[in-house]
Amino acid sequence: MTKTVLVGAGHLAIHFQNQLTKSKKFQLIQWYSRSIEKVTFAEQKLDITDQLSQLKEADLYLICVSDDAIASVSKKIETEGLVAHCAGGVHLDRLKGPSKKAVFYPLQTFTKGADLSFEQLPFCIETTAASDQKKLQDLAEELGGTAHKIDSQKRAVIHLIAVFLNNFGNHLLHLGNDLAKKNNIPFEIFHPLIHETFAKALSNGPKNAQTGPALRHDQKTIDKHLSLLDDKDIKKLYIHLTSSIQKKHEQ
Amino acid sequence: MTKTVLVGAGHLAIHFQNQLTKSKKFQLIQWYSRSIEKVTFAEQKLDITDQLSQLKEADLYLICVSDDAIASVSKKIETEGLVAHCAGGVHLDRLKGPSKKAVFYPLQTFTKGADLSFEQLPFCIETTAASDQKKLQDLAEELGGTAHKIDSQKRAVIHLIAVFLNNFGNHLLHLGNDLAKKNNIPFEIFHPLIHETFAKALSNGPKNAQTGPALRHDQKTIDKHLSLLDDKDIKKLYIHLTSSIQKKHEQ
Repeated sequence: MTKTVLVGAGHLAIHFQNQLTKSKKFQLIQWYSRSIEKVTFAEQKLDITDQLSQLKEADLYLICVSDDAIASVSKKIETEGLVAHCAGGVHLDRLKGPSKKAVFYPLQTFTKGADLSFEQLPFCIETTAASDQKKLQDLAEELGGTAHKIDSQKRAVIHLIAVFLNNFGNHLLHLGNDLAKKNNIPFEIFHPLIHETFAKALSNGPKNAQTGPALRHDQKTIDKHLSLLDDKDIKKLYIHLTSSIQKKHEQ
Repeated sequence: MTKTVLVGAGHLAIHFQNQLTKSKKFQLIQWYSRSIEKVTFAEQKLDITDQLSQLKEADLYLICVSDDAIASVSKKIETEGLVAHCAGGVHLDRLKGPSKKAVFYPLQTFTKGADLSFEQLPFCIETTAASDQKKLQDLAEELGGTAHKIDSQKRAVIHLIAVFLNNFGNHLLHLGNDLAKKNNIPFEIFHPLIHETFAKALSNGPKNAQTGPALRHDQKTIDKHLSLLDDKDIKKLYIHLTSSIQKKHEQ
């Protein structure tokens, strides 16, 4: 059994706790949160603490705190064990205290209150020592996910791509949703279109899947759409995305 | 049986033909294409023509031609029957010849070579005479879809929203896909993230689903991402989308 300490009590940490409790390969021996009330619901046999100085010696420390807190939290962990953070956009070297460093980044979006599954989820794994890879590969598989060896440089690009796909993609849905609300159009009628958009992009490739007024340089429709947008910034964004599509397809 | 003539031989028309052949309420009696070779594969008992002057008298004409051709094609259809175009961004009044006009717009993205289903698909329906609504409602349901009474003004907004969701959404996938290729990252590892993005936006609402450096004003990560983008236009688009997210969430 790999003795494991969980550091942090956000959405991701709660799901790790949930899964690790069932594991036969990883034994969760302690859970830390600076706000102890966040972890008191954990089962009684699991040790909880709000003091980093009281962390138990373990084989693996999973740090699930905000990006900015990774350096200061890791600095206070004194151990011979492996210390891994779980952030996509943070370099391995930001881990300050421990000698055995790692990254264990689940490539997914996590929000409070949303259901979450690690099933088939890719975990990006990086370790200072090659001998530590295996432990995190095992962890990824134990959680139901898949393991991918990715260094900090490549992970930064992955994190950037995730911003385009998730953050920016969600924002377009937000803008569409607001336009629908404002015009008393039930957003549900767009669900089949949204579903097809991503199904088609993934099966045919997004280049082949592109359609619409931008691609066919249909200025009449573009002008009509712009006349329907009264928010200056969203109008600009429409123009910008339209020209970006046109440039991309001229390449 | 509603005698029906199909005008046009693009992707949408082919699927209409496919479905109508099976229908017991709508009888496809003729198929027009200006390029006759596109419709010669149709079953023998279906009359085909490349001459608008030879269109048969029917109860319903479904016009599936490009937006720009709708006016000129409809002008040449002499009939007492109902003439419907299927374009999202084109006003009902663009139908020039017939006295009984309608729009029958399937809210979906259609690409050559991609599988297509009308199952549960919303059709936006508009008619000059209220008495013609029923016919197109029946058609939507016969095709497996759902009927929605939507006037040209509202349909223009729906078409605009569809551009944000589909055209712009697909473009983000295209940019992400290209960045992945360029950095030798298999795009498949993003599939769970893409799936979750849209599932979460639809179940929790896109406002609640927003996460990422833009939302939390994490300028360090934003700057890091910008340093990874060498294309000036895509860099600008990143900045623009970031500030758009920030403005939206200040409202």
